[in-house]
Amino acid sequence: MAARDFHHDTVKTALIKDGWIITDDPLILKIGTRNVLVDLGAEKLIAAERGAAKVAVEVKTFISPSLVNELEKAWGQFFLYNRILKKQDPLRQIYLAVERNVFETFFQEEVGQLLLEEPGFRLLVFDAKIEEIIQWKPQINS
Amino acid sequence: MAARDFHHDTVKTALIKDGWIITDDPLILKIGTRNVLVDLGAEKLIAAERGAAKVAVEVKTFISPSLVNELEKAWGQFFLYNRILKKQDPLRQIYLAVERNVFETFFQEEVGQLLLEEPGFRLLVFDAKIEEIIQWKPQINS
Repeated sequence: MAARDFHHDTVKTALIKDGWIITDDPLILKIGTRNVLVDLGAEKLIAAERGAAKVAVEVKTFISPSLVNELEKAWGQFFLYNRILKKQDPLRQIYLAVERNVFETFFQEEVGQLLLEEPGFRLLVFDAKIEEIIQWKPQINS
Repeated sequence: MAARDFHHDTVKTALIKDGWIITDDPLILKIGTRNVLVDLGAEKLIAAERGAAKVAVEVKTFISPSLVNELEKAWGQFFLYNRILKKQDPLRQIYLAVERNVFETFFQEEVGQLLLEEPGFRLLVFDAKIEEIIQWKPQINS
């Protein structure tokens, strides 16, 4: 199983353990005539609900040799999807999901901190071994 | 000559015609221990000055089969570089440079408009045939 798919399923399991109901997998975003998530290799969004809270979760593995490249891609995707959701599904909040090891290493570096400091950015940290969510930044209310 | 290099030189010529002095080509951004622009295939930033105005110009060709993919990449790169410049060279403004045809087609679509509407985004439109800058959005003061 590819690392990408593995983490996708891990995050789904972690969300379910955390009391979420998976409503769409993948969540398809369309804008104008373009289907935003058709690209080969694009990570697929997971849509989930818990009580009144609705999220779209984008899982990123950060396994490429160029972590800065992956950061740029994650940055652009997060804010593009965020903008589309604001127009089409304004109550749904998008979160970027990264594994604990990635959060504790790359996201503690200065370059990773830049994304964490970007207004409107939201991160979900999961542990792949125990398949659980460690934290939501910012905390989610539901 | 690759399309990427071609447009890079075109934009340099257009800037010079517009009264700018090229000060760095490429402009190297470093953050923490990482050199942000070492990635193979990454477009290189052009640094230029005119009077008191300082810009960093990122040229994007939008020739990939997946324009949405290119948009995501451009989006992430623009705002990552923007954040680095805010810390390291706060008077320098970054602009994304796109060819007139790209501006008049893809950027008029709903998905392209999303980036144009993003707060803090700055675009430079050039004409590759006449090698001139058509517009700065927002207008640059110098």
